[in-house]
Amino acid sequence: MTDSNHPALHPDRLFPAEPATRAIARRLYAEVRTLPIISPHGHTDPRWFAVNEPFRDPASLLLSPDHYITRMLYSQGVQLDELGVEPNGERRAPPAPELIWRTFAAHYPLFRGTPTRLWLDWVLAEVFGADCPLTSANADRTYERICAQLATPAFRPRALFERFGIEVLTTTESPLDSLEYHTAIRASGWPGRVISAYRPDPVIDPETPGFVTNLERLGALTGIDPFSWRGYLAAHQARRAFFASSGATSTDHGHPTARTEDLGERDAEALFERVVRSARRGDLSSADAETFRAQMLTEMARMSLEDGLVMQIHPGAWRNHNTPLFGRFGANIGADIPTRTDYVAALRPLLNRFGNESTLTIIVFTLDESSYSRELAPLAGHYPALRLGPAWWFHDSPEGLLRFREQTTETAGFYNTVGFNDDTRAFFSIPARHDVARRIDCTFLAKLVAEHRLPEDEALLVVRDLAYRLPKQAYRL
Amino acid sequence: MTDSNHPALHPDRLFPAEPATRAIARRLYAEVRTLPIISPHGHTDPRWFAVNEPFRDPASLLLSPDHYITRMLYSQGVQLDELGVEPNGERRAPPAPELIWRTFAAHYPLFRGTPTRLWLDWVLAEVFGADCPLTSANADRTYERICAQLATPAFRPRALFERFGIEVLTTTESPLDSLEYHTAIRASGWPGRVISAYRPDPVIDPETPGFVTNLERLGALTGIDPFSWRGYLAAHQARRAFFASSGATSTDHGHPTARTEDLGERDAEALFERVVRSARRGDLSSADAETFRAQMLTEMARMSLEDGLVMQIHPGAWRNHNTPLFGRFGANIGADIPTRTDYVAALRPLLNRFGNESTLTIIVFTLDESSYSRELAPLAGHYPALRLGPAWWFHDSPEGLLRFREQTTETAGFYNTVGFNDDTRAFFSIPARHDVARRIDCTFLAKLVAEHRLPEDEALLVVRDLAYRLPKQAYRL
Amino acid sequence: MTDSNHPALHPDRLFPAEPATRAIARRLYAEVRTLPIISPHGHTDPRWFAVNEPFRDPASLLLSPDHYITRMLYSQGVQLDELGVEPNGERRAPPAPELIWRTFAAHYPLFRGTPTRLWLDWVLAEVFGADCPLTSANADRTYERICAQLATPAFRPRALFERFGIEVLTTTESPLDSLEYHTAIRASGWPGRVISAYRPDPVIDPETPGFVTNLERLGALTGIDPFSWRGYLAAHQARRAFFASSGATSTDHGHPTARTEDLGERDAEALFERVVRSARRGDLSSADAETFRAQMLTEMARMSLEDGLVMQIHPGAWRNHNTPLFGRFGANIGADIPTRTDYVAALRPLLNRFGNESTLTIIVFTLDESSYSRELAPLAGHYPALRLGPAWWFHDSPEGLLRFREQTTETAGFYNTVGFNDDTRAFFSIPARHDVARRIDCTFLAKLVAEHRLPEDEALLVVRDLAYRLPKQAYRL
Repeated sequence: MTDSNHPALHPDRLFPAEPATRAIARRLYAEVRTLPIISPHGHTDPRWFAVNEPFRDPASLLLSPDHYITRMLYSQGVQLDELGVEPNGERRAPPAPELIWRTFAAHYPLFRGTPTRLWLDWVLAEVFGADCPLTSANADRTYERICAQLATPAFRPRALFERFGIEVLTTTESPLDSLEYHTAIRASGWPGRVISAYRPDPVIDPETPGFVTNLERLGALTGIDPFSWRGYLAAHQARRAFFASSGATSTDHGHPTARTEDLGERDAEALFERVVRSARRGDLSSADAETFRAQMLTEMARMSLEDGLVMQIHPGAWRNHNTPLFGRFGANIGADIPTRTDYVAALRPLLNRFGNESTLTIIVFTLDESSYSRELAPLAGHYPALRLGPAWWFHDSPEGLLRFREQTTETAGFYNTVGFNDDTRAFFSIPARHDVARRIDCTFLAKLVAEHRLPEDEALLVVRDLAYRLPKQAYRL
Repeated sequence: MTDSNHPALHPDRLFPAEPATRAIARRLYAEVRTLPIISPHGHTDPRWFAVNEPFRDPASLLLSPDHYITRMLYSQGVQLDELGVEPNGERRAPPAPELIWRTFAAHYPLFRGTPTRLWLDWVLAEVFGADCPLTSANADRTYERICAQLATPAFRPRALFERFGIEVLTTTESPLDSLEYHTAIRASGWPGRVISAYRPDPVIDPETPGFVTNLERLGALTGIDPFSWRGYLAAHQARRAFFASSGATSTDHGHPTARTEDLGERDAEALFERVVRSARRGDLSSADAETFRAQMLTEMARMSLEDGLVMQIHPGAWRNHNTPLFGRFGANIGADIPTRTDYVAALRPLLNRFGNESTLTIIVFTLDESSYSRELAPLAGHYPALRLGPAWWFHDSPEGLLRFREQTTETAGFYNTVGFNDDTRAFFSIPARHDVARRIDCTFLAKLVAEHRLPEDEALLVVRDLAYRLPKQAYRL
Repeated sequence: MTDSNHPALHPDRLFPAEPATRAIARRLYAEVRTLPIISPHGHTDPRWFAVNEPFRDPASLLLSPDHYITRMLYSQGVQLDELGVEPNGERRAPPAPELIWRTFAAHYPLFRGTPTRLWLDWVLAEVFGADCPLTSANADRTYERICAQLATPAFRPRALFERFGIEVLTTTESPLDSLEYHTAIRASGWPGRVISAYRPDPVIDPETPGFVTNLERLGALTGIDPFSWRGYLAAHQARRAFFASSGATSTDHGHPTARTEDLGERDAEALFERVVRSARRGDLSSADAETFRAQMLTEMARMSLEDGLVMQIHPGAWRNHNTPLFGRFGANIGADIPTRTDYVAALRPLLNRFGNESTLTIIVFTLDESSYSRELAPLAGHYPALRLGPAWWFHDSPEGLLRFREQTTETAGFYNTVGFNDDTRAFFSIPARHDVARRIDCTFLAKLVAEHRLPEDEALLVVRDLAYRLPKQAYRL
């Protein structure tokens, strides 16, 4: 088997075509190609590394859980159940995984020009040894080879973690999670570092289904009354401490907007009580819900200042935009749509309270690229507590990553950014995603060098910082 | 006469300068250069092809009706009447066409760097044989040559239609139009395919001057009572059927916003009655007008699901922004200005009702580029009924077309887009506009190939799809 | 001393790497490299040129007053007082300037990839003869050399003004300013042209601290009652005439939004009286303040039509976003943040009243790049009175300047733009800023030429227009 023609393995992929610039990009990339992967924000399953069982079939591993894939096929008329996504409460058998794989292969041309294509090509070529892109013609053969490989020890989760060169892998859990798998991983003696991030949305967002029940469980877990304002805050502090003791270094907040508030103690308490009361009765107002989420971001910042957990805010997704599909399949099937997002007014209460604290780190993300140069780079280029998260979700693609650097660097510089986040549940694609990000940073820096905007010796330092030092430092890893 | 130095005819125009990438672009372009033109959305005059008379003089053919041209000269102090645009109700003779042409030639440098310059250079060079760009010095000579050519049979509308390689040309008509010229074209035995698109804004937008009169005419044309909700809808269905029987495959909706509604039957009926009543009295509220337009988009989608007409929505222009000029010259003199446009909340009622129908096609356009990556690519990359219309109006330019691909492809791919629309009344420039779009797609794809993001054999398939197959398929032609 | 390796002096800096395109860029740049500098909008201190004393030390000259520098260091945890920014009402001695310089040098890597780095490198290399970028290792040596040079006659303000090739330098003053330094400069016999621009925000924005006192001073200066609407307007006219007689050719308006109003005489008068009354009582409503600013833009346009002063509007900055820092250090310490800005609705009252006047010039700026292609290029490409100001403040950087051309040229062309503004108080960096802008225009035009979108002979004309003719013409200099 030769891989010489597989584009996913071309040594110059994603580098500029102009030869002198490409040569610079190669030299920069040589500096970072083999650096360990820091993955400080993602959604892989910690159970994989705790039990270290073989992965199942290629379809349930690579396709069904990946909403980048299912949404694209759905947009062209393929039904979600054909892809192994199981409808709520329906008792029909999903298609056999080899059939799902064939459907996927037949629609592989849809991904031309997308980052999913780059990542999948890389996984199939580099991890599983494919020698050309997937087609209907080679679908069955590819499927069988992957099955055979998954059954071998070299393809178990821990072996791949090591093969991929991962130094830290962060997962995301609710305060109600026991972190049992993280505990098991550490108890096992395996040296892989898999840590959690504290994601309290289910006990902060009063519009979450089951919010009151979640508070009750929070109370049960902590032994603190979660229905008084002070108790509620203390319960957060207790769970944050538990997460930190288990290795976590960060929190993560996925609110609909970036709005923050800085209410006085008494107003905050009154708001909390009103929110709990109305959530119980089922007549919560959306205005109260929004204000409560806003206030809680500021409370979380205060706790971060105290316990040192790095705070991440990523607003701006309209979750489950497609109501009929949500009704049938539930969340996370690709119907989350970005919306216009304000940061300047929204973050001001929090930043005026804590933004001048240089021992606090708040990392903010966006799905609204129009805010890069207008709002986020100026804010991150001023407030000591603020750092700019990388191009994210719909934007962690070659063009998206490049626009991020082009539109933020001149105001915020490199050192108010924090390296790359893969933010993925697709474990196999993690190296490909980091590799794309590293290559695009090399491409951006090579252009600066070629145009005499930055000396090459300094670009060599910057590219290492972006790939390794900045994420470690920003996430306190 | 030699054209070797005319930039409009340079074989490599619009291709990247980097030699390896340019070579790829050339190979891609060779695949699509001579493909027939599919023009599924435009504003040419069907009468031209029905009567096939010679075009008049160069000024009234190429300048006065083209608001891209008149607006640029107006912005630099040239008065519209100097350009042959006739003021409402004023009985002054317009300048002689050769004087208009001279004024235009003297201001030709204003178009440097604009697509109008590319299109006009191409028309003058390729259609009329000019050997260098237009200047004051060669204005009279150019004018006379064009006059002489327009008098010859080879420059009549049908001959040019054939010379331009047009396979289908779509015009746009109101439901109140008789489609007499389309009928005459088909009756004539000439094989050119010139079809209409159903554009019901004058009988849907209650803020249109003469809305109630338009409804009366709709009633007269269909024999259906247009002042009952059911009758009004039935009259639409009848006219849509008439348009379809005459060859139309699409509808077209130019609303101020993208707002849609999905009211119940009874609420919709009450709204309609209130709108008609208040329009008659002259006290229509703008809120009711907006809600009615919003509801009608959903009604039109329902009818499209039934009769198979492809639905086009292009919101976001503030029409006739310049009130004094509108008062003197009327509409379409270049004072339409794009506005910030929301799609995520606005389209949701329609999409939640019909967006999951994969037999329905809704093509959505924007004048607000900030929505490409944030809203439109994610929506089109999810909903089966939704396709993304091309860069349009202010954006069907080299940089505009390139930004469209750069900002939409990574999320929506190529196959949720529908090829190019020229959207023009400037018949002579149609081949130039399609050629610019094809070249820019080759430029975009050549970069993907040169950077090893897509194999060249696949890029060759994609470029054919974008130039020919996708518009035919999307518009059901 | 050799400068051969200093990137700030590389002859090809900022030109595209592709050799053929770079060769074109070089030819274009040769045409404009030595053209005089037109600086029609800025914030240097006229006193420098009136008294022509030596500048003080490098820190107070180059660092402390430059909020591009202080904000970046502040964002990474350096305190403003460490940089010589003096807190209000605190009587602590600032650090010695050589210590400030060391702090700065230690943080110089933060500026990698920013325009500040380009400008500072140029100043240190070209003005002060540095042979490599600043580091902690060479900080003291660099500091001493600068000190020695500043003490020599060749480094006094007037000598540098001449060495920099400045033809006109515009400063910005309040109507309450005596223009004594401008008067002194003209009286001195020195031929350097340093003129003011009329910036009436302190007597127009009723939310300015001290607004009523400012009106009183306006009355005292003009001998006109500033508390009647007619007197207030007449006082403006008197001060505008005084500024014009002193050489000024423009006004400048820095409002939070672009909103304009066109109230009737009586409504305007009532509004003015209400604003003054409530400002005196301290209960001014923000709605009245906004409407008053909006109305005054239209009044200023009317006066510009009469007295010929060019009007500049630059909205969209949220001033002093960081309240705690503002409380301690006051304004202009880097906490101004751009906000989303509407132009289409906002400017319409003014444009409908005066936008069709081709003898009026209104130059509009933005900090919201999303408005370039959507709003500003279409407006400037239509209204005769409107011109588009250059990429400004956060956007006068290589990538920012390039995006400006890429997103505005195709709709507005080059001739509805007005060349470059440095908008700076950093006198030493003025040539570097203009040089960056000229190089980027050459880069943009070289691409058009290399892609056969514009003949090179025309590009040579355009680049001269952008560098010299357009700013002179637009600002009536």
